[in-house]
Amino acid sequence: MELPQTDIVREHETFFRVRYSECDQQGVVHHSRYLIYFEQGRIELLRASGYDYGKMEELGILVVVAHMDIHYMSPARYDDELRLVTRVTKVSYAKIEHEYQLYRGETLLVKAKSKLAAVNREGKIMSIPPEFGGLGEFPQEL
Amino acid sequence: MELPQTDIVREHETFFRVRYSECDQQGVVHHSRYLIYFEQGRIELLRASGYDYGKMEELGILVVVAHMDIHYMSPARYDDELRLVTRVTKVSYAKIEHEYQLYRGETLLVKAKSKLAAVNREGKIMSIPPEFGGLGEFPQEL
Amino acid sequence: MELPQTDIVREHETFFRVRYSECDQQGVVHHSRYLIYFEQGRIELLRASGYDYGKMEELGILVVVAHMDIHYMSPARYDDELRLVTRVTKVSYAKIEHEYQLYRGETLLVKAKSKLAAVNREGKIMSIPPEFGGLGEFPQEL
Amino acid sequence: MELPQTDIVREHETFFRVRYSECDQQGVVHHSRYLIYFEQGRIELLRASGYDYGKMEELGILVVVAHMDIHYMSPARYDDELRLVTRVTKVSYAKIEHEYQLYRGETLLVKAKSKLAAVNREGKIMSIPPEFGGLGEFPQEL
Repeated sequence: MELPQTDIVREHETFFRVRYSECDQQGVVHHSRYLIYFEQGRIELLRASGYDYGKMEELGILVVVAHMDIHYMSPARYDDELRLVTRVTKVSYAKIEHEYQLYRGETLLVKAKSKLAAVNREGKIMSIPPEFGGLGEFPQEL
Repeated sequence: MELPQTDIVREHETFFRVRYSECDQQGVVHHSRYLIYFEQGRIELLRASGYDYGKMEELGILVVVAHMDIHYMSPARYDDELRLVTRVTKVSYAKIEHEYQLYRGETLLVKAKSKLAAVNREGKIMSIPPEFGGLGEFPQEL
Repeated sequence: MELPQTDIVREHETFFRVRYSECDQQGVVHHSRYLIYFEQGRIELLRASGYDYGKMEELGILVVVAHMDIHYMSPARYDDELRLVTRVTKVSYAKIEHEYQLYRGETLLVKAKSKLAAVNREGKIMSIPPEFGGLGEFPQEL
Repeated sequence: MELPQTDIVREHETFFRVRYSECDQQGVVHHSRYLIYFEQGRIELLRASGYDYGKMEELGILVVVAHMDIHYMSPARYDDELRLVTRVTKVSYAKIEHEYQLYRGETLLVKAKSKLAAVNREGKIMSIPPEFGGLGEFPQEL
């Protein structure tokens, strides 16, 4: 599918350091915390486009995660300086897909994919507005 | 101060097991997680009185923590079976005070005190309704 | 592949309640926390077989998550009573695969799959011992 | 008590943004997460002195929290840009005390105090080495 002609940024790099409390007793980042890094990556990508996820929620557009697929290749450790590449890979009326690559230096530690949907406060699927990277109103034929 | 004649339960015991993800790389429960145990203790104490914290929030009564004081005496570890004693120690129109003792067997691991207030959705201090252990409407002289 | 003739339990149900601190500002369980529930499901399944994950770690056998695939179908909310079904679906010398179904009543909320590997303290892949559901020593031909 | 003549930095400012996953369903930072911010403040203060907490742990010096006292004055919210001031206020052979002030702009949101001790891997109290802000070896009379 062709990506729509919206002005959102398609790729973004976020830099951060692993916090002590994110590590488990194996001395590595607990596997659940990477999802929090990815979420932060999406939010920063949106911000780089000039948008604000908090504002979306105030307008009643809630972004929910429908699917995550994560490959853990090598562990991140306390105090590591990490670089997260977040990329929009596919957009439809109701879903946005992202890819993530998390690096320490040149080493790829974790890669992942997600599918997000937008819902209203009642949990009903909405179309994703163009200003947030979506294609806008659902077409009649949907 | 005399405790009011409401029918809430004044003391409650909660039993639970330490989860793997709650431990840090020292191999002990991270010091921040005990606050989550204490919160769960308050919620279970309220439930034992026949009330439901979720319902309070739906009615627009938000309970917020104003003060916490925590003494960490001995660490809890992964898979420990813990017993938390939660006690209401003081009640006023606008605040409720609790005490907590967390045990593994007979060993006291952590003890703490908290002060809670009730606020509405705009963050304004409310009186705590009697059904939730409070003294009810603020008196005129307040 | 045929499942090996070890005596570990292949399926287990865990029951628990959603904690307040696990919910985000959408009023639903944050999507990262389900991985913590799944981890707890694996640990309880192991315990039901008479084994103890903490003991494995003391022996220097660390279980690491290599892959997770999660479908979020409907959100869990604060105070929901949930039932998690954890199942071992495939075993090889170096990996164990699990499936998870998380229910509220009869409603399937989240389903997921994981692949785990065992590593030693230096991060080197080990064979998974039979007492933990593995096939034992790597065969010569590997 | 007079502060010892060690070369550690006595005060440090850390800047960070509230993450989405740190907020609860009241739409504010969950009260347990501030302890994670404070921990990060201590680590950054130590780093500003040229020391590395990870290295301390590798040397077998574990820093544990013995006491925390926290006053929550106003809530931090998603995406807020916060400034944390972390200060060493007292040093003895076996303990270090810190104070914390967390600000959004000029508004003081949370203030706290902590007492930390150093223990070895067996959990026995150690003296805190001068390079980490301590007074060094316990004197004979202790």
